[in-house]
Formats: sequence, structure tokens, C-alpha cells
Amino acid sequence: MFSGAQISLYPMADDFVRIILGSLSALDPYRSRFRIETDDLSTLLVGPPEELFPAMRDLHVAASRNNIHCVLHATVSRGCPGEPDDPICTPIEGREHGAPLATRIDAALAAAQGAPVLNQNVAAQLSLYPLGAGHHMDEIYGCIDFLKRSGVFGKSKNFCTTLRGDAGPVFATLGEAFLRFGSPEGHLALDLTVSANSPTAI
Amino acid sequence: MFSGAQISLYPMADDFVRIILGSLSALDPYRSRFRIETDDLSTLLVGPPEELFPAMRDLHVAASRNNIHCVLHATVSRGCPGEPDDPICTPIEGREHGAPLATRIDAALAAAQGAPVLNQNVAAQLSLYPLGAGHHMDEIYGCIDFLKRSGVFGKSKNFCTTLRGDAGPVFATLGEAFLRFGSPEGHLALDLTVSANSPTAI
Repeated sequence: MFSGAQISLYPMADDFVRIILGSLSALDPYRSRFRIETDDLSTLLVGPPEELFPAMRDLHVAASRNNIHCVLHATVSRGCPGEPDDPICTPIEGREHGAPLATRIDAALAAAQGAPVLNQNVAAQLSLYPLGAGHHMDEIYGCIDFLKRSGVFGKSKNFCTTLRGDAGPVFATLGEAFLRFGSPEGHLALDLTVSANSPTAI
Repeated sequence: MFSGAQISLYPMADDFVRIILGSLSALDPYRSRFRIETDDLSTLLVGPPEELFPAMRDLHVAASRNNIHCVLHATVSRGCPGEPDDPICTPIEGREHGAPLATRIDAALAAAQGAPVLNQNVAAQLSLYPLGAGHHMDEIYGCIDFLKRSGVFGKSKNFCTTLRGDAGPVFATLGEAFLRFGSPEGHLALDLTVSANSPTAI
């Protein structure tokens, strides 16, 4: 199964180039397990689905240091039938995708509970797109139910759901949304925005 | 049919608040036909699907004035079964959604040709998600074929396609991608990033 993300950092500051370049070392612990390619619009990460959200979290927290208002956007995908399988993307293991929604929600809640606290507050919004399945709204509603019980739920908005809290539990919750919903080998995409240090944060 | 977008502007500058607030008057010509709600993460536009992309174009061009590196991100959606129909969102008319893909591609190419030139170069990347349909990849490949022949095609990347050129034809092409692909009353989402004045633009 192919899995990865196109990610972008938007530091709202004149010295955005220095801030972005200064944050990249946060990806060093992950580099050996990812294929990484950058252009002027985004950086591609291809690798194990379980490591995508920790890598994005560490990058975003690094770029948001010193109270910089910084947004990370990511287009995250797994199982796209238009992509070749890549050995670098290991299958999702031990997550019982065949289990009923209620069981998967409980498992996601339990898994996200162990998240580290990183002392960086963030607000996030996500849209989950299970593709090619007849019952995509069931999986979306199941995921929203999980998000509402996650402890970092913000609110429901048109087209997306928001989360608020420390970057540790927020990114852990986002990762569980990506890993536990949609069919196990199916095509799933996630449109993600995470914001730190907004002057209009609520 | 419900249609709209969650949009965000990211000016990479210390005075991002002033730049964002200064660009909002670009939405004035559209306000009477849209419902608009803002929070710290994004601004919701709900209204006629044909006007979403011209409104986003004018907003982004306004925020990118004076060579500011500014990114617009949008989560665009139509036909979401989780949203009530809204009279403010008129149906897409005269677009022959039942027509074969090849006919729709030709119609999209013809429609995008009349786009104004705005003298603002942009780079964009988009992911199209036709939801709840068994043949979502056919619609995606048809849309990519259209993009490749649009005159503003950039390149194919994992999970998305890039466009490059003047904001006029680029946003017109994006609008046609949103309006002509996927089933006529079906659920379609589009994940969109548009960047102006990047110092690393290629």
C-alpha cells in the first residue's frame, strides 16, 4: 500500500525562509524511513502510515517556536490505486480494520491516550475522504464520533471538523483518524490544516 | 445542492493581519450571493458553485499585491449528503454532466479559454475527490487529462496535480475541474493550494 503526504509550512513572518529551513532538522529522525522530495509548493513524504503524523507534528512544532504564527497544511493519502505499491510504505498492522466502527472508535481512543504533551497549543481542521466506497458517509460519521470523544474536539464546521489542544494529543488524534477509518486497503485521503500561535485563536 | 469552500489566506509577512484585512474588500462584489462565516482557521463561503473560484481568485490576487508571498488554501465541496440543500447554492446549469468524459473535457477547455489575464503569476496544486462513486478514478483521470490540455498544466505529483500561469486562466481551469467532473448531483471535494510570489518558484 502506498502512503504519504504533501506537506507545506506557512510561517506568517518576513523571515519565513529562515524559519522553514531552521525547522527541517525536526525531520531527521524520520529521514531513513521516508522518501522526501521538495518543490516550491510542498514537500512529499512517502513512508510508513504510522509515522506520517509524528513527523508532521515534530516539523510543525519546530517551525512554531518563538511564538511564530505558523500553519501546516497536508494532503495525506493511503491506498491510492493510481500509485504503485512501495516497499517503504509498510502495511498498517494490528489495527483490525475489519472490525465494526464502534470497536475501531474505542481502539482509536485508547491509542491516542498515550500521546506526549509538547507544550504547544494548536488548532486543527480536517476533512476525511474515504474514496471508492459506497458507504463513505458511514466511515466519515464514525470518524467524527471518534473526534468528538477524543478530548481535543473543537467543533463541527461545514466540510470539516476542528480540534484544539496540545500538539501531542491533537496530532495523535489526527493519526488515528487516518489509520482506523475507511476500508483497510482502500483509498483514503485527508485534508489537514494545523495552526499555532494565531492572534485570533479562540 | 449545497456548495461552498473553507478558505484561508497565508501571507508570509510580519504584517499578515493588515494584508488579510486589506484584501477582504475583494469579496465585496460577491457578498450578496454568499453566506460568509470566519473563525481563526478559515472563512466559509457558501453560495453558487460557479462563483466560488472567481471569488477566491480575486481575494488571493488582492492579498498577493506588492509582491507578497501569499498562499490561499481551500477545501471546496459540492453535493455533500451531510449538508442540507441551501437555496443560496443554485444548481450547476447547462453543463451536461451526463455527457461522456471526452465531451466534458472539451467543454471545460472551451469555457476556460475566455479567462481574463490578471498579471499575477501563480502556482497551484489540486486534488479532486469524487466521493461515493464506484468509478472515482475514471473521473480523476478524466480531470487530469483536462488539466494536461489546459495550457496551464504544471506537472503530476503524488496525490495532486500542479498548474502554473496567470491567476486568470489558472483559477478558471480550477473552476472547470470542480464543476465538470464527478457525478452531477454527487459529492465532490477539492483540496486546493495556490501560491503567489514564492522566492523558490520554478
